[in-house]
Amino acid sequence: MAKLQTKDYQAIVSNMLADTGVILTQAEQEAIEIADFGLNNLEKTGLQLITYVNTERYCAKDLVLFPHQTCPEHRHPPRKNGDPGKLETFRCRKGTAYLYVEGAPTISPIASPPAEDIQYYTVFHEVVLHPGEQYTIPENTKHWFKAGEEGAIISEFSSNSEDESDIFTDPRIKRVQNN
Amino acid sequence: MAKLQTKDYQAIVSNMLADTGVILTQAEQEAIEIADFGLNNLEKTGLQLITYVNTERYCAKDLVLFPHQTCPEHRHPPRKNGDPGKLETFRCRKGTAYLYVEGAPTISPIASPPAEDIQYYTVFHEVVLHPGEQYTIPENTKHWFKAGEEGAIISEFSSNSEDESDIFTDPRIKRVQNN
Ligand SMILES: [Zn+2]
Ligand SMILES: [Zn+2]
Repeated sequence: MAKLQTKDYQAIVSNMLADTGVILTQAEQEAIEIADFGLNNLEKTGLQLITYVNTERYCAKDLVLFPHQTCPEHRHPPRKNGDPGKLETFRCRKGTAYLYVEGAPTISPIASPPAEDIQYYTVFHEVVLHPGEQYTIPENTKHWFKAGEEGAIISEFSSNSEDESDIFTDPRIKRVQNN
Repeated sequence: MAKLQTKDYQAIVSNMLADTGVILTQAEQEAIEIADFGLNNLEKTGLQLITYVNTERYCAKDLVLFPHQTCPEHRHPPRKNGDPGKLETFRCRKGTAYLYVEGAPTISPIASPPAEDIQYYTVFHEVVLHPGEQYTIPENTKHWFKAGEEGAIISEFSSNSEDESDIFTDPRIKRVQNN
């Protein structure tokens, strides 16, 4: 894809969701978050998000990935208020999601991080999620994920979300600049 | 519909979800809960549920309603462990859901409770949810809901779910017998 604007990406994401039966209100379409993590290479390293609800107790989002797009490695640390960190369940809705978590590295993993950033990826235990499959990522553990050739739509069910507390392995990353 | 078996209803629910783009694994299809609340009149008063995840911190389900089916009035009370009660966000995915919550009764509401059980319904503040619309129901407050003529699919995002602690207005109801 050529250099597109935020509203172009929002329209693409809306259409991907509509194709999967997910209907957004107009206000939600305009609030779709296009996150390039400050690396300025969205289609390679980035994530598109719709947050449906984020209360103190729980949060629900849909995560949309373009083909072969990677969401970079991060963890959700404990917080000062006693919260042990964000607990996340990823449920794949469409496409294939390759999720990498802490644990024994997978021999011959299917996906790999963006080549130029390989030094910022440290966990390689592979979980492959097809539509209808899901996985819960423990609090304060590293993870990253990447879509297959069709892209992916993932529903994320979690405890409260607070993007600014996320810790990325890549020190260049600023998560919240796009908000 | 004639008298059907649980597995027939599970198949109908799976198909309704598939038509909306929601894919279930085989194990999930077999675990679809068909709840008649002990009233033995499922298609009038009942609810079909798929629980995707239910951790101590959060829960996610899809709720499926047949045309004009009613989920009876109930609340989610505080628990002994200090939990203030289940907080629920209903997001309509398909069809129309008529939700009734505490507050000023709506003049001329669109839907009404099953006529023979009207004495067990006490809250009538109407919230109409079309696809893409959602509403968060405060802890420990009464609510009930009913589908329109197409039925409805509702994604429920919530804090931990514990069906056996739910309090129904209708004293005949036993929530958990179907589990
Ligand atoms: Zn995460
Ligand atoms: Zn409820």
